[in-house]
Amino acid sequence: MKIRVAKKILEANDRIALLNRERFKKAGVFVVNIMSAPGAGKTSLLEKTISRINGKLRAGVIEGDIVGTEDAERLEKLGIPVVQINTQGACHLDANMISEVLDDLPLNDLDMLFIENVGNLVCPAEFNVGEDIKVMLLSITEGDDKPSKYPLMFKESSALILNKIDLAPYLDVNIERIKRDSLKINPELKIFEVSCKKEEGIDDWVSWVIDLRDKGMKR
Amino acid sequence: MKIRVAKKILEANDRIALLNRERFKKAGVFVVNIMSAPGAGKTSLLEKTISRINGKLRAGVIEGDIVGTEDAERLEKLGIPVVQINTQGACHLDANMISEVLDDLPLNDLDMLFIENVGNLVCPAEFNVGEDIKVMLLSITEGDDKPSKYPLMFKESSALILNKIDLAPYLDVNIERIKRDSLKINPELKIFEVSCKKEEGIDDWVSWVIDLRDKGMKR
Repeated sequence: MKIRVAKKILEANDRIALLNRERFKKAGVFVVNIMSAPGAGKTSLLEKTISRINGKLRAGVIEGDIVGTEDAERLEKLGIPVVQINTQGACHLDANMISEVLDDLPLNDLDMLFIENVGNLVCPAEFNVGEDIKVMLLSITEGDDKPSKYPLMFKESSALILNKIDLAPYLDVNIERIKRDSLKINPELKIFEVSCKKEEGIDDWVSWVIDLRDKGMKR
Repeated sequence: MKIRVAKKILEANDRIALLNRERFKKAGVFVVNIMSAPGAGKTSLLEKTISRINGKLRAGVIEGDIVGTEDAERLEKLGIPVVQINTQGACHLDANMISEVLDDLPLNDLDMLFIENVGNLVCPAEFNVGEDIKVMLLSITEGDDKPSKYPLMFKESSALILNKIDLAPYLDVNIERIKRDSLKINPELKIFEVSCKKEEGIDDWVSWVIDLRDKGMKR
């Protein structure tokens, strides 16, 4: 087998991310950038998360999709401010896209802002948007080889949420391998096992992220 | 809800794709570009497909991954020529990457070349590499909203292979919706339902692609 290496030039967007960051800090809003492959359950996780946060903290969402508003419509039903970004072909959100929609959100009235990135395990991890933390969602149906194949997202994330854990009995997936390989890439990674469908494990994740926000706001 | 539109500039790579195309044609090799989200089962499909083709037709594989050689190693066990491209961060294969590895394959001795693209539902569909057909694999665990959210890949593909069909009883997924919405985007799309794990539906797909090759080679 021959192995060949291709090159990629990445656009720097860190300057704009820093400006977003300052704006979030000034507004007192804690920002969570949620990333996963298509269909891992980002919107379901946000539905479950926000319904638990509502009444305690004020949440908002920036929803990223190539086209359409299906997920934004689901989240708007929770009675929170939602802005849809349609990337028109771009496979990730970048700091500039986020910057351009911030005036459309009541930032000063929010405690937490969730950014649902475009479904993709590659490029979203390369683009900081000014978030406090990145969180990765992995459906266990995607297999146990994802940490070794898409290491950057595991490295960049503060938490890994393993979703669809209710399907484990029907899959040949080694969940311990996922955990072990993820922690090899990122020993600080906090790992949660959840089933959005069966409403399992959500509370642990929600407590963790609220706690992290509380600590972050005190700094 | 406010809807905002971001812009993306795509690099043209069609000139190089055309050169690849001419080279494939001259060598008499039929080229299938296989695309899907991460973990939908591209490598499993190739294992099942090539083991059925072996002995009748000579197959080769170009394997695209961000990093690593795990899938290429699995396919090399079938006794066929395999070249691994590591894209080092790029979320798709492009015509130039393919062009650069063609000398590493015995093109004139192959009947079919399978290109396993990087796991991503977005950019791989935007980059022609000189293939005869694009084929899309969708795991039904990804949900029934994928045609409306990632329409380009459905539009560009000649066939849609719905994989992990054995998990249907455990999912809230409307397979008829996937089919209906896919055909709305691309009425010519040939749809197969398969389970690589249970070895179901593979023969239909393999017959179809061999038949398409035979017809293509006569032109």
